[in-house]
Amino acid sequence: MDRVLQDMEKERETLQVWKERVGQELDSVVAFWMEHSHDQEHGGFFTCLGRNGQVYDHLKYVWLQGRQVWMYCRLYRTFERFRRADLLDAAKAGGEFLLHYARVAPPGKKCAFVLTRDGHPVKVQRTIFSECFYTMAMNELWKVTGETYYQKEAVEMMDQIVHWVREDPAGLGRPQLSGTLATEPMAVPMMLLSLVEQLGEEDEALTSKYAELGDWCAHRILQHVQKDGKAVLENVSEDGKELPGCLGRHQNPGHAIEAGWFLLQYARRKGDIKLRMHIIEKFLLLPFHSGWDPEHGGLFYFQDADGFCPTQLEWDMKLWWPHCEAMIASLMAYSENGDPALLKLFKQFRDPEFGEWFGYLKREGKVALSIKGGPFKGCFHVPRCLAMCEQILEVLLRHLGPAPVVSSPTVPTRGGSK
Amino acid sequence: MDRVLQDMEKERETLQVWKERVGQELDSVVAFWMEHSHDQEHGGFFTCLGRNGQVYDHLKYVWLQGRQVWMYCRLYRTFERFRRADLLDAAKAGGEFLLHYARVAPPGKKCAFVLTRDGHPVKVQRTIFSECFYTMAMNELWKVTGETYYQKEAVEMMDQIVHWVREDPAGLGRPQLSGTLATEPMAVPMMLLSLVEQLGEEDEALTSKYAELGDWCAHRILQHVQKDGKAVLENVSEDGKELPGCLGRHQNPGHAIEAGWFLLQYARRKGDIKLRMHIIEKFLLLPFHSGWDPEHGGLFYFQDADGFCPTQLEWDMKLWWPHCEAMIASLMAYSENGDPALLKLFKQFRDPEFGEWFGYLKREGKVALSIKGGPFKGCFHVPRCLAMCEQILEVLLRHLGPAPVVSSPTVPTRGGSK
Repeated sequence: MDRVLQDMEKERETLQVWKERVGQELDSVVAFWMEHSHDQEHGGFFTCLGRNGQVYDHLKYVWLQGRQVWMYCRLYRTFERFRRADLLDAAKAGGEFLLHYARVAPPGKKCAFVLTRDGHPVKVQRTIFSECFYTMAMNELWKVTGETYYQKEAVEMMDQIVHWVREDPAGLGRPQLSGTLATEPMAVPMMLLSLVEQLGEEDEALTSKYAELGDWCAHRILQHVQKDGKAVLENVSEDGKELPGCLGRHQNPGHAIEAGWFLLQYARRKGDIKLRMHIIEKFLLLPFHSGWDPEHGGLFYFQDADGFCPTQLEWDMKLWWPHCEAMIASLMAYSENGDPALLKLFKQFRDPEFGEWFGYLKREGKVALSIKGGPFKGCFHVPRCLAMCEQILEVLLRHLGPAPVVSSPTVPTRGGSK
Repeated sequence: MDRVLQDMEKERETLQVWKERVGQELDSVVAFWMEHSHDQEHGGFFTCLGRNGQVYDHLKYVWLQGRQVWMYCRLYRTFERFRRADLLDAAKAGGEFLLHYARVAPPGKKCAFVLTRDGHPVKVQRTIFSECFYTMAMNELWKVTGETYYQKEAVEMMDQIVHWVREDPAGLGRPQLSGTLATEPMAVPMMLLSLVEQLGEEDEALTSKYAELGDWCAHRILQHVQKDGKAVLENVSEDGKELPGCLGRHQNPGHAIEAGWFLLQYARRKGDIKLRMHIIEKFLLLPFHSGWDPEHGGLFYFQDADGFCPTQLEWDMKLWWPHCEAMIASLMAYSENGDPALLKLFKQFRDPEFGEWFGYLKREGKVALSIKGGPFKGCFHVPRCLAMCEQILEVLLRHLGPAPVVSSPTVPTRGGSK
């Protein structure tokens, strides 16, 4: 009995140390974006930031605008120490920028992919992702401010996205070609599932409205487990069959792991223990093991399910975000049955000199690109990971025994139990 | 006097050795594509080939279909040892595949970027490049076979391309967005200039028809020399001004060098010695020196003209094609005033075991992708480089003194002199 208590105390101490380190890191990362990314003149955020925060391009990528608004609001809403007027003001200015400029041809809902500093559209993607991050931003702004026009924007955009995905994709502008396979990239149901979680959080009416959609998303994501359960494939047919060629064999281990923790939240909400075990096995352990570089450690960016050489030049690089997803997922799995070894991963990405994390390491771990932000890296994966890890560790510590009182009114492990 | 003769003899021997090595390499590379890439069932070529030639994807990329047809015809036409029926038959089968399937909606001229194995369009790019390689293929088929319908296809497509570039780009399908700068990627006038050379070769009527276009292309390419003559930029405004941000600072040293040898051919044809010296300085020596990796050797793929970190993940990789262009350009410059040191570059890319060259090396020279072909690497840069180097060396040797008689009725150094 003493031995059990000793082990629990040791675990508590380990988790406490991790929680403090993660919390300090989160503070430092948020400070980086607060200091360098705000455009005081036009609103919105610069995300093309060099190692020391210097702006090297003024373009505004809509994914990253939406994500930063979401991140600031989420921090404001769920961490007492981030309930700061400057954070909320910057989020609102980002929200206003999106409201004014994100849509290419209002009242049409299609959003640009990238805007000039003063909001003119530069490029439009024929996908749903700008619109998804727009929706996340608007919903969080509503949750924080209570202003109903944000929520109206969020729900109307969500309904448009669902229409594009499930009814008619014509509005996205992709040409119909006779040789194009009806492919489902896993990103689509993943993104929708995360929106279902986002909109449904503490909102019974929307939870109910999107319940069937959530089930559909989970079903679609689960269809990406292929090759007799031995691989998660990025692209399958809409009815869950393998596709030919490189497209069909394409794997992205970090993405599978991210899908894993999205699904785990879903399964916890459903109270489906069997599904939780399946997800941990197929979306966390499987891609973690098959995607891990046996020589240098870390997760490969891309792989070919049949072991061919991928054609993407960056296939063996180590990117920050798969490792962020792995940290979240491993802590979530630990909340069920695991161990937090993955937390040490983040050390290789840290920049103790200027703050924030490097995004792109070579296979062997050397920094490949010194930028802290760019067209695809903004104020999102790193702080989301750190914030979620801090919150999960807080819950774990609460379950283990007496711990100092911390903020965090909402934690992402609702319905979870250890 | 004896010393001068001795030096000439030494130079002759060096060039003779290089010519033999390049010729053997060309034979081996052509054999690789002949053995592994022909689709006997549907015509056209597989280009997604693994290290040993194994087909890892059946998709047919139109750029690479057109380039392989062109390459086979060019070899057949200008090398006695490649005047082989099997080479011509494969080129014709590739040409028929393009004639039947390349255009997305005939009689419209827009071509697909990639087709299924049996010719259905999978993806369309909103650029002119598929159409340009289609034109190159058709013109060479005409030059080899004398079949006028090939030439009709080539000239009609050329006129369509020129219309898109100089009159109205609407047919390419790019949306007009208020934030998009009127950018000129250097690839566009480069590609057109190479088509002017291609169509005008031994054709007085077309030389005359496209003379003004050739001058326009040369003028446009020369506008990419910026930063007080210290950098060749990939993108400038249509009136030759620098553009803001990463786009404006983007550099691709191998591309600048390729533009250099295109321009050098143009300047030789014009007999413009001053222009030739300018081109050698700005498009060959400048990018060669600023693009060279001082630590590991080789040309970087991308650079930022102001020294910021590029945002492309592959920026510091060493690709096969910039080194092919550098080999051609350095030999051409040597024909004017240089030295052939660059020929040794190709050793790092060679695969003595299975033939053809690796395409993608890491910065330090290790093979990054084991593929021999893929969406952007086909039967083109390596054999074009080897064939042109063999022909240039042949001309140089002819100028130096008695040498064994070799084939090569056409050489790309017309108008050139040593």
